[in-house]
Amino acid sequence: MLNELNLLRSLLPSLEQGRGVATGPGDDCAVLETGGSMLQLAAVDQLIEGVHFLPETDPAAAGAKLMNRNLSDIAAMGGTPRFAMLTIAAGAWPEKRVLTFCQGAERAGRAADVSIVGGDLAALPEKGFCATLSILGEVEPGKAVLRSGASAGDALYVTGRIGNSFYSGRHLSFTPRLAEGRFLAGKATAMLDVSDGLLLDAARLAKASRVALKLQLETIPLHPDAAAPQAWSDGEDYELLFCAPPGLEEQWPEALTPITRIGTVVPGSGELYDTNGELIHQEKLGYEH
Amino acid sequence: MLNELNLLRSLLPSLEQGRGVATGPGDDCAVLETGGSMLQLAAVDQLIEGVHFLPETDPAAAGAKLMNRNLSDIAAMGGTPRFAMLTIAAGAWPEKRVLTFCQGAERAGRAADVSIVGGDLAALPEKGFCATLSILGEVEPGKAVLRSGASAGDALYVTGRIGNSFYSGRHLSFTPRLAEGRFLAGKATAMLDVSDGLLLDAARLAKASRVALKLQLETIPLHPDAAAPQAWSDGEDYELLFCAPPGLEEQWPEALTPITRIGTVVPGSGELYDTNGELIHQEKLGYEH
Repeated sequence: MLNELNLLRSLLPSLEQGRGVATGPGDDCAVLETGGSMLQLAAVDQLIEGVHFLPETDPAAAGAKLMNRNLSDIAAMGGTPRFAMLTIAAGAWPEKRVLTFCQGAERAGRAADVSIVGGDLAALPEKGFCATLSILGEVEPGKAVLRSGASAGDALYVTGRIGNSFYSGRHLSFTPRLAEGRFLAGKATAMLDVSDGLLLDAARLAKASRVALKLQLETIPLHPDAAAPQAWSDGEDYELLFCAPPGLEEQWPEALTPITRIGTVVPGSGELYDTNGELIHQEKLGYEH
Repeated sequence: MLNELNLLRSLLPSLEQGRGVATGPGDDCAVLETGGSMLQLAAVDQLIEGVHFLPETDPAAAGAKLMNRNLSDIAAMGGTPRFAMLTIAAGAWPEKRVLTFCQGAERAGRAADVSIVGGDLAALPEKGFCATLSILGEVEPGKAVLRSGASAGDALYVTGRIGNSFYSGRHLSFTPRLAEGRFLAGKATAMLDVSDGLLLDAARLAKASRVALKLQLETIPLHPDAAAPQAWSDGEDYELLFCAPPGLEEQWPEALTPITRIGTVVPGSGELYDTNGELIHQEKLGYEH
């Protein structure tokens, strides 16, 4: 098995970014200047049978998951999704199953007003199934929410509830937090979506922002079928984890998924602390997908 | 093995295209309106070990091929490439080999002033290697060259020489015809790049334009190591095949790859004829990758 983080860490710093790249690799989306009144957002994600979904999973649900993961990346920037492209490399899958997968992705995209504008389909010589979806979106200049903008004194919030996403099946049926992300554009100071576990993703946000986070672990909102501490590291929640000046909960629109304050930004360099000031150990924070 | 064309044919008509999609699936790139002074181009392509390159292929050359195939799609629209995103799903590949693949793709992109702005890397549970690259580019409004604009009386041209690309290794080392494509923006009436065989791609252009093509088969320019008729169907040439008003060769810049006139557009609905007016049979036109 490849250690994808180590490899990407060695690769990404070597990638020179040319004109028009406002934010390159490392955030939920790249932010691109293409000459219009809006900035363009771009992200790509993969979905692999046996890794991100099981062979017995309904292929329409798997296709929807791929689209929704990408929509969640646009939400985490405060953006609006526009266009997608879909590729599939499939080994032993019957044609009907591939078609059902595509229709699941398309239906999830249509719910967010996203058109699939291109794609490619190829046969894998081995067994297996690997799909990718690239997503394009837009955001007003100055309103994209990166991971890196939190500062000491901000509050830390999360939308919805987390935990037990995989075994409950919620990883196949979650709603990407697009309306919440758009409300937070220009308001949140830092944001990402919870894909690899709340604690691991919180540590990433803290590191990108060069701050530490003091977490009130007992306030982290859990699904009824999830239990702490495991739920803090389960991942695949696709809720938005974000920082904003304290008091945001008072202006939070009722029509949106509720938010919960779960901590405070303090000076530091990527550490997570509990309310007693004890360091939360990093080695068991979450699962690297 | 999936029959990708049949599947895509059943899927693509069902894909609704929303606001901002000037050209959806089916051309070399989608053409997108994002509010700026330029139209955006988007395409995606896959590269699979055992299908598009061999296990013994230099991984840097395979990575460059993936980037260059996508650059060729931008060239075939008359556009300028800007940004790319790269995904890799790898089974048994050592990390170093994956890194070399990425560096090959990055180097080929840099030669065209293209930044890799995002990506994803994941482990495949089975053997195998599958990479995708999505490319974004731009073109002036009204200048994108689609497959569908040819009309009777136009001449048919091809850049460079074709044939024997796979066994000669040229499929790994070709130069995408970006400068030629940009010169043809707003001048060519229809264009695509030759990926699946000159005759098959010519038939696609004819079908999209609702015309027929009368080919002077003996004028098709071949590489010295290629022989007709096989070369007409070899594919992976990545030359530009395009229609334009006759006489374009007289204004063709010397600095560009030379072009050859190989036929004439006549009324029809997708047929290919030789100079005797005999129908060229469709069943052996090329190879579906």
